[in-house]
Amino acid sequence: MTRRRKIYEGKAKILYEGPEPGTLVQHFKDDATAFNNKKHDLIEGKGVLNNRISEYVFTRLGEIGIPTHFLKRVNMREQLVKEVEIIPIEVMIRNVAAGSLAKRLGIEEGTPLPRSIIEFAYKSDELDDPLVTEEHITAFAWATPQEIDDMMAMSLRINDFLSGLFLGIGIKLIDFKIEFGRHFEGEMMRVILADEISPDSCRLWDTATNEKLDKDRFRRDLGGLMDAYQEVARRLGILMENEDQTPRTGPVLVK
Amino acid sequence: MTRRRKIYEGKAKILYEGPEPGTLVQHFKDDATAFNNKKHDLIEGKGVLNNRISEYVFTRLGEIGIPTHFLKRVNMREQLVKEVEIIPIEVMIRNVAAGSLAKRLGIEEGTPLPRSIIEFAYKSDELDDPLVTEEHITAFAWATPQEIDDMMAMSLRINDFLSGLFLGIGIKLIDFKIEFGRHFEGEMMRVILADEISPDSCRLWDTATNEKLDKDRFRRDLGGLMDAYQEVARRLGILMENEDQTPRTGPVLVK
Ligand SMILES: Nc1ncnc2c1ncn2[C@@H]1O[C@H](COP(=O)(O)OP(=O)(O)OP(=O)(O)O)[C@@H](O)[C@H]1O
Ligand SMILES: Nc1ncnc2c1ncn2[C@@H]1O[C@H](COP(=O)(O)OP(=O)(O)OP(=O)(O)O)[C@@H](O)[C@H]1O
Ligand SMILES: [Mg+2]
Ligand SMILES: [Mg+2]
Repeated sequence: MTRRRKIYEGKAKILYEGPEPGTLVQHFKDDATAFNNKKHDLIEGKGVLNNRISEYVFTRLGEIGIPTHFLKRVNMREQLVKEVEIIPIEVMIRNVAAGSLAKRLGIEEGTPLPRSIIEFAYKSDELDDPLVTEEHITAFAWATPQEIDDMMAMSLRINDFLSGLFLGIGIKLIDFKIEFGRHFEGEMMRVILADEISPDSCRLWDTATNEKLDKDRFRRDLGGLMDAYQEVARRLGILMENEDQTPRTGPVLVK
Repeated sequence: MTRRRKIYEGKAKILYEGPEPGTLVQHFKDDATAFNNKKHDLIEGKGVLNNRISEYVFTRLGEIGIPTHFLKRVNMREQLVKEVEIIPIEVMIRNVAAGSLAKRLGIEEGTPLPRSIIEFAYKSDELDDPLVTEEHITAFAWATPQEIDDMMAMSLRINDFLSGLFLGIGIKLIDFKIEFGRHFEGEMMRVILADEISPDSCRLWDTATNEKLDKDRFRRDLGGLMDAYQEVARRLGILMENEDQTPRTGPVLVK
């Protein structure tokens, strides 16, 4: 195999130059990090699961008309994606108070929010991804008002769809984080969903028991991270029930 | 003098029941506090100056058509105001990076912002007045979208007017914090400016020297707080040049 050019190595993923111009290979590592890298561990197999779960979710989102960067999965740990110019904003969509919102606003974790709340954080490790508002985003030109509108509209649709999808498999979608990027198709630029959607970037609680099936198991030293991620993949119908846990393609939407 | 009913005692002011229903007496104390009361001191005469400066600013704002709670000053430390239902949001208007914004977004203090930025903080001492967005404010019904619009529109007008006023007296208005309340006039409810505007709630830098003429002198142990506040009052034309510094009425706007 010829040596590929590494574009970026992040905490959980590596981006390589793709086979065609305008494409990238997104490689999912087994690294688990939290609190802006202050906590770090290797969880064997996490990358494989996130690659498959993210593939599944992005494919279904594409089917309902959300434009995404996902092109195809190329192997256990890697997927081919469209290269985008990442908008330096993490979009958080929250349905139930948890994590930083629960703490900042003094609301007990687990309290349903009066309505879904969208938050923005400025992507900056040095600054610990500070919460920002549309005021900051537009003043510093991190995104235009139109791009913010596009991101918010897509976020609400994604939230509706994923809330339903997870509810259907006995999981409450508490909150999740997504990223968007600018994709240039000739003269045309549009904002599309990028990065990943996986138990690394969502809070997922079992509907019946409230058991956490997401990265909070790592953040809070609850153990059993791989079991939880495998359970999510299994419920999504992604994993085969065979010994080596080789993923198979999950159920597709009837279009 | 008959004993008045105390409605609320805050860190810098006391509210007493006013002489008429629907009025309050706002009493300015000499207490200086910072970092949510972790730092506290008594600065003799500060209350007198803030009472006069706030009177002056609110009166001028009323003259340009900003509805405010201010009715009249009743003595050195007290003013009569309309009772409002305070909207639990601190509105910050920033022209130059300083304080929490400079820190959170990693921008050097003193850097002019690309445009004025409005921020909201949820009024809660226990939570340290966390930054919130319109999303949080409307989701938790702290204010309606219409009230947010009203507050933002008034904030921008107040910023324009005060930027000019201070520029005229050799002072840069770096940022300031204001509060609004719901005032009921019979059936009619409208949002009006309440609380105070003083060097306690503004960042004011001398145009020529960048010397701080505001509460940061206290927060950052720079000393000379009273001199700075007196300088602001003097430049506003409020103080008489006599020994006891008895304030006189400053110049009024030509209406
Ligand atoms: N289609 C894409 N084109 C370009 N960059 C992308 C695309 N999808 C995701 N990215 C970026 O690739 C990186 C993925 O790596 P990873 O998630 O490990 O980073 P990270 O350590 O979380 O750091 P970051 O704070 O940048 O997300 C992220 O910076 C993400 O914004
Ligand atoms: N017209 C008004 N009617 C009712 N309340 C008012 C009015 N103007 C100001 N207030 C409130 O009066 C209090 C003034 O006290 P002070 O500024 O010392 O409080 P504080 O210690 O800063 O606490 P807070 O966080 O509540 O402002 C504030 O709570 C303010 O919101
Ligand atoms: Mg990332
Ligand atoms: Mg106050």
